[in-house]
Amino acid sequence: MAEKLKGAAVFGQSGGPTSVINASAYGVIKTALEAPEITNVYGMAHGIVGLLNDTLYDMSKEDPKELELLLNTPSSALGSCRYKLTSEEDMAKILEMFKKYNIRYFFYNGGNDSMDTCNKISEYMSKSGYECRVMGVPKTIDNDLMGTDHCPGFGSAAKYIATSVAEVHQDAYVYDTGAVTIVEIMGRNAGWLTGASALAELSGSPPDLIYLPELPFDMDKFLSDVEAVYKKKNKCLVAISEGAQYADGTFVAQAKTSTTDGFGHAQLGGTAARLAAEVNKKFGVKTRPIELSLLQRCAAHIASQTDIDEAFLAGKSAVEYALSGGTGKMVIFTRGSENGNYKCGIDYEPLSICANTERKIPREWITKEGTYVTQDFIDYVLPLIQGDNNRKQENSLPRFANLKKVKAQI
Amino acid sequence: MAEKLKGAAVFGQSGGPTSVINASAYGVIKTALEAPEITNVYGMAHGIVGLLNDTLYDMSKEDPKELELLLNTPSSALGSCRYKLTSEEDMAKILEMFKKYNIRYFFYNGGNDSMDTCNKISEYMSKSGYECRVMGVPKTIDNDLMGTDHCPGFGSAAKYIATSVAEVHQDAYVYDTGAVTIVEIMGRNAGWLTGASALAELSGSPPDLIYLPELPFDMDKFLSDVEAVYKKKNKCLVAISEGAQYADGTFVAQAKTSTTDGFGHAQLGGTAARLAAEVNKKFGVKTRPIELSLLQRCAAHIASQTDIDEAFLAGKSAVEYALSGGTGKMVIFTRGSENGNYKCGIDYEPLSICANTERKIPREWITKEGTYVTQDFIDYVLPLIQGDNNRKQENSLPRFANLKKVKAQI
Repeated sequence: MAEKLKGAAVFGQSGGPTSVINASAYGVIKTALEAPEITNVYGMAHGIVGLLNDTLYDMSKEDPKELELLLNTPSSALGSCRYKLTSEEDMAKILEMFKKYNIRYFFYNGGNDSMDTCNKISEYMSKSGYECRVMGVPKTIDNDLMGTDHCPGFGSAAKYIATSVAEVHQDAYVYDTGAVTIVEIMGRNAGWLTGASALAELSGSPPDLIYLPELPFDMDKFLSDVEAVYKKKNKCLVAISEGAQYADGTFVAQAKTSTTDGFGHAQLGGTAARLAAEVNKKFGVKTRPIELSLLQRCAAHIASQTDIDEAFLAGKSAVEYALSGGTGKMVIFTRGSENGNYKCGIDYEPLSICANTERKIPREWITKEGTYVTQDFIDYVLPLIQGDNNRKQENSLPRFANLKKVKAQI
Repeated sequence: MAEKLKGAAVFGQSGGPTSVINASAYGVIKTALEAPEITNVYGMAHGIVGLLNDTLYDMSKEDPKELELLLNTPSSALGSCRYKLTSEEDMAKILEMFKKYNIRYFFYNGGNDSMDTCNKISEYMSKSGYECRVMGVPKTIDNDLMGTDHCPGFGSAAKYIATSVAEVHQDAYVYDTGAVTIVEIMGRNAGWLTGASALAELSGSPPDLIYLPELPFDMDKFLSDVEAVYKKKNKCLVAISEGAQYADGTFVAQAKTSTTDGFGHAQLGGTAARLAAEVNKKFGVKTRPIELSLLQRCAAHIASQTDIDEAFLAGKSAVEYALSGGTGKMVIFTRGSENGNYKCGIDYEPLSICANTERKIPREWITKEGTYVTQDFIDYVLPLIQGDNNRKQENSLPRFANLKKVKAQI
């Protein structure tokens, strides 16, 4: 057992939000507020940017009932950012803030880029001889973090996608006339979310074709795949990743690559519209492109309870591990079983492993033809989408957490 | 009490599907199957097209448990069509089919165009001296049918829209950087659905600006409205109807008017993308256009139970009214109250009134500035979205009705 470290804790959320990132926030905040060693619990306004700007919220000032509503409030309640730590100046400022607030615990909730931020802070503090414990809490609907079986946020997005594609299938097949429907799904370089559309087959309503960014996109093959399905069914339902790219690495939606986010990633979109135009041009059939867009990451009304529970557990475990002396790690999920049923376990991996690398769908979980996923993929995803959430509603509409966000004074 | 009329009943679904059109189908089919006067219950494959093609399904061959699942199955389970009856040949064919199957009851479920179909058949049969009873069952997410307080399908779409806009609001306001988010909502000439986005204010997450097709769209005014909100909040969330149009009647998304549906309506889409580009060009701010697209009409997972119950009741009432001698009418909803609470009543209006006309939002339910709806509008919509549906799921995914669709033999 490590020596007890007394001091304040700070928590931040970074990157694209998810339906359950606030469940992790609640896991961290609740556990930290209850820990005797932790003297104060601060929330960063807009992640690391709030720390750099000295804008921290005092979480002890919040109504515990409102904090509990974080379990079913989508997006990042404290605000998010896309900010890459690069300068020595930033690092010095962070150390200054740690000293000012006597921060001894740093918890950061995000994806690959956020783990990079976390790792840099961990290394800088260690080098500076400032005693503190730094932990990463995973988050990404994309499910592409290395070192973990799966990521909080993925299960809820997968459930939204599978349900929506099943419903769209019912609609897309309704007319007596021919139609090609193309659903565009998030995922820059990894196709986990697009693959999850296959779970609609459990509702008897699968996509006919699935295109993942793991395999090079070939327009001629795509058009002949669509033609073959269409000839048989007079319909075709396609699920395609926004990140679909040609063998040379250019995105199908290349037209959109001019706008970039703060990390230099192309902002994608328009893949479905582009393909719909190609199909219409080639075959003259009616097409309908659909972008699932932001709802994939914020549709908390259909969040998976399994995902919510695990997201909370990830946050709670990060605090407990740090309290017991752990640092420089990200919480990871392991997959176990109990009486033959899926059971999620917790472990910890060095931040350096989780930062800046992406985990893709293994080739063997994609069919030989490259246009669908295998049963192994479906078996992997299915446990993660289980359980209806028990969200609070008023007037049959969502009741989100209403935080006061009282600025910390020192 | 009218004389009892013995014979077969035929039922069809037409136009764009909704989350609850199958609940009306169940109302018609179940009530008809239980009626002693009705000798056979047939379902038209793809609406009137199935009748013209002699493709009818024998509904008595279906498993009653599967039929019950229609209550939570989106889209038109029997298939839909967009077919306008224009020729004398078509009418003669329909009479021939009525005689072949001894059809004495005709139930048709759809919107304005479908009521036109229904009305033509009613008049033709009357003129031909063929005794039958013809009833329209309303359906449209657009809520634009004349003569009824509201339409089955609207409440569920409104609930999906209000919930989704509330969730998108949480997401759209998450970053520390500026952003304008534009959500495009269905509705060709009536803004009921777009207006329903205002209900997100009950989740503390309203759109900042709402643009309805009832008022002429002015690009300069739109840009200055957005600028004013953005200056204050560094964000702006806009809800806009796909049917937004300039004073001269051209659609904002004019570029898309080349593809038309079977009734000569322009197929809309792209309004949000168009406006996002304008905002970006003018102010250089990050924009995100979101089209809610098909999910608005097929997201049965979040259908309003009130809407499901009323849709069922509409179908049931059509059959009961016809059995009691009624014909040439559409079922309508009236708004009453019971102990101060909303209560839906049933009445009947001549098909001629309901066909081909559109009901718009009254001017007094739109604010003076024209960029939001009034409390009266919200009070009107709120009762219609109430109640979580109790849908059947398997593996936490929707379990839709699985019909055998056995072709009727005579």
